[in-house]
Amino acid sequence: MGEFSQIKYEVDGPIATITLNRPEKMNAYTRHMMREICAAMDLADGDDAVRAVIFTGAGNGAFCAGADLTPEGGGGPFSSDDPVDDLGDDSVRDGGGRLTLRLFQSTKPLICACNGVAVGVGATMQLAMDFRLAADTARYGFVFARRGIVPEASSSWFLPKLVGISQALEWCMTGRVFGADEALRGGLVRSVHPAAELLGTARALALEIADNTSAVSIAMTRAMLWRLSSAEHPMTAHRVDSRSIFRLSKSADAQEGIQSFLEKREPEFPCKVTSDMPDFYPWWDEPEYR
Amino acid sequence: MGEFSQIKYEVDGPIATITLNRPEKMNAYTRHMMREICAAMDLADGDDAVRAVIFTGAGNGAFCAGADLTPEGGGGPFSSDDPVDDLGDDSVRDGGGRLTLRLFQSTKPLICACNGVAVGVGATMQLAMDFRLAADTARYGFVFARRGIVPEASSSWFLPKLVGISQALEWCMTGRVFGADEALRGGLVRSVHPAAELLGTARALALEIADNTSAVSIAMTRAMLWRLSSAEHPMTAHRVDSRSIFRLSKSADAQEGIQSFLEKREPEFPCKVTSDMPDFYPWWDEPEYR
Amino acid sequence: MGEFSQIKYEVDGPIATITLNRPEKMNAYTRHMMREICAAMDLADGDDAVRAVIFTGAGNGAFCAGADLTPEGGGGPFSSDDPVDDLGDDSVRDGGGRLTLRLFQSTKPLICACNGVAVGVGATMQLAMDFRLAADTARYGFVFARRGIVPEASSSWFLPKLVGISQALEWCMTGRVFGADEALRGGLVRSVHPAAELLGTARALALEIADNTSAVSIAMTRAMLWRLSSAEHPMTAHRVDSRSIFRLSKSADAQEGIQSFLEKREPEFPCKVTSDMPDFYPWWDEPEYR
Repeated sequence: MGEFSQIKYEVDGPIATITLNRPEKMNAYTRHMMREICAAMDLADGDDAVRAVIFTGAGNGAFCAGADLTPEGGGGPFSSDDPVDDLGDDSVRDGGGRLTLRLFQSTKPLICACNGVAVGVGATMQLAMDFRLAADTARYGFVFARRGIVPEASSSWFLPKLVGISQALEWCMTGRVFGADEALRGGLVRSVHPAAELLGTARALALEIADNTSAVSIAMTRAMLWRLSSAEHPMTAHRVDSRSIFRLSKSADAQEGIQSFLEKREPEFPCKVTSDMPDFYPWWDEPEYR
Repeated sequence: MGEFSQIKYEVDGPIATITLNRPEKMNAYTRHMMREICAAMDLADGDDAVRAVIFTGAGNGAFCAGADLTPEGGGGPFSSDDPVDDLGDDSVRDGGGRLTLRLFQSTKPLICACNGVAVGVGATMQLAMDFRLAADTARYGFVFARRGIVPEASSSWFLPKLVGISQALEWCMTGRVFGADEALRGGLVRSVHPAAELLGTARALALEIADNTSAVSIAMTRAMLWRLSSAEHPMTAHRVDSRSIFRLSKSADAQEGIQSFLEKREPEFPCKVTSDMPDFYPWWDEPEYR
Repeated sequence: MGEFSQIKYEVDGPIATITLNRPEKMNAYTRHMMREICAAMDLADGDDAVRAVIFTGAGNGAFCAGADLTPEGGGGPFSSDDPVDDLGDDSVRDGGGRLTLRLFQSTKPLICACNGVAVGVGATMQLAMDFRLAADTARYGFVFARRGIVPEASSSWFLPKLVGISQALEWCMTGRVFGADEALRGGLVRSVHPAAELLGTARALALEIADNTSAVSIAMTRAMLWRLSSAEHPMTAHRVDSRSIFRLSKSADAQEGIQSFLEKREPEFPCKVTSDMPDFYPWWDEPEYR
């Protein structure tokens, strides 16, 4: 896996770990890092052995300190050769959103083990993940209004969905940096852990999923919950879940699910995400946003 | 009310109670039970004396243990004579969703008194109700991914709306069975009670509504909150509530509401759901999904 | 500012305060008060010195006791010369919704310092604000079903968004009046304070925003979070925030944001809401609803 320079991608059993790996820069985010994370996500999605992906930061103290605004880092979200006047969809693409929209398409559960400072895109990239765990030393900041810009990475969609519009407004309007306790109270993270136990807890959660569930079920569940919960009417969900139950209830995974339940043993699901998703998946049609 | 074989339907004062009634099978869900609950809902909606509906399970220990997968129970959500290839809306209809979409159309408040195990459709059918109360012995499980299938009954729409996307993902991705305390912390239930006090508390809540409010107001409020909260813009709600206030503020119920308030006495609202809903109700147009 | 008769509008430094000012009537809401608040909002939005707006009620004990139903108050939400039969959008306009839709368009943060009783429109008008603080003596009631009418002011959209559909249903279906503690537990208010400290806390929050953030960033952030969080897909947010970051990252505010951060000093943002919003703002197209 030596092809990455700003991240590490490691697979251990059913768990892939993506480590933001610029510790000397507090793992600040660059265009290059964005492309590497997207490439690593392609590896994880294409590898049926991988059942969950953990994100963390290299070094002590930082998960990701935000966009690297130095020339070395790419000069921020837009480079100097960007078009000046064209506001078309293809020309103007925020680099944080390219990542979160890629994470949105993941077929694997995404678990953030936030080991320290997470501000700007370091905070917003986590919002498209499924589970957010924090070290007790973690600190978060949606600091955009203090820098004269705005929340990016589709966080105006993600953050209110996770923590409610009131909490989202308070964090984005004050721009304050806050600790893991406030993140827990506000619903941004599911649990807070001593730094030494953070990765272990994340791995235990990943294994709880990997050991007990069907990979195809999880990929479908992930797409259904994120995509159908924002529909205007529950019938939209009914149409998708009716088809899903119809197809999957005849699958080898459903047979094994019932059999292992009756035999009170752990299941061994045979179906694979790369080959056994139901024929109507993906059921959506949307522009490629990478 | 002897026409039901898998449920009981009982009316006592302003409260109808629907009891899932296959205690020897832990009240497991069948197509027949689905049709009986829908028929009971038609009775409740058509009876102006009924002001609220309580759901509970017969026997000790189970509200509903999920879909009955035995041949006697119908063989699961799809029977063997279902079409194999046709994924059209009319052919492929999940049985859990047919129930929750029927509950969605209720004109009466729905209160779940969850007296024990509630897994699979036993958990998801509760999501379309307005109030979820739990016995301290209740246990919940969105176990679909452990069985090789997916969340059904439109729960990918309902569950995130009730508990937030993060909690919904955790319960659906792990598929774990959890107790009443976790259900309370996660926002799935409003309150937890000793088993002996569960139905009494549910009845007290039903009476708080029945004694103090207009039946027409409640039917409108129920439709408005469930349907308008998912609109993209508050103007959608403004258009409906403007018409509602315009019509209802001239109604006999509004006169009685003000009069009883001024006289500091309990109101006696004369209007009926079966005859006095505003002329523009229902304001939506949607396929019949039963 | 002597032109108002039912409110007071006062500006002190970066903070405008709108005081509902009919203390002898518990600040009951009238059509005239609605027009005055909307006019005061126009003043606040047009004054670049104003960075936040605080709402409170005059006198002791009431923020706003709901619609004034006496002839003096306008006879309730609809006057006798309203059309009887025309349910068209232009003819039928709830007076609470005209206010909340005006607040929805605010470019400044709105902070409610709820100093007492807030029932009916006194409760629902707060829902379109960004921060709700309560005196420990505050009391709230979504009492519409007890009066034979329905939740108004687009509250079927706002309230579930703030507190979740379950809590919203309980408060609207029971119509009960509840205290500041229940409001805090249910997520309606962010914090509860002794009455004597309420306005001071609201002002401190307003100053935290005014001292640290860009006015243009805040106006954009407000519009983005309220409007984009209800979209069906995060791509809707990505399209707006990409354009926003693209334009604003080249602005004088972004330069000052980075410069002040590097120099570890408070920023002095030069851009103004009245002249320096990005060229694509507003990005929406909607009927004028005032």
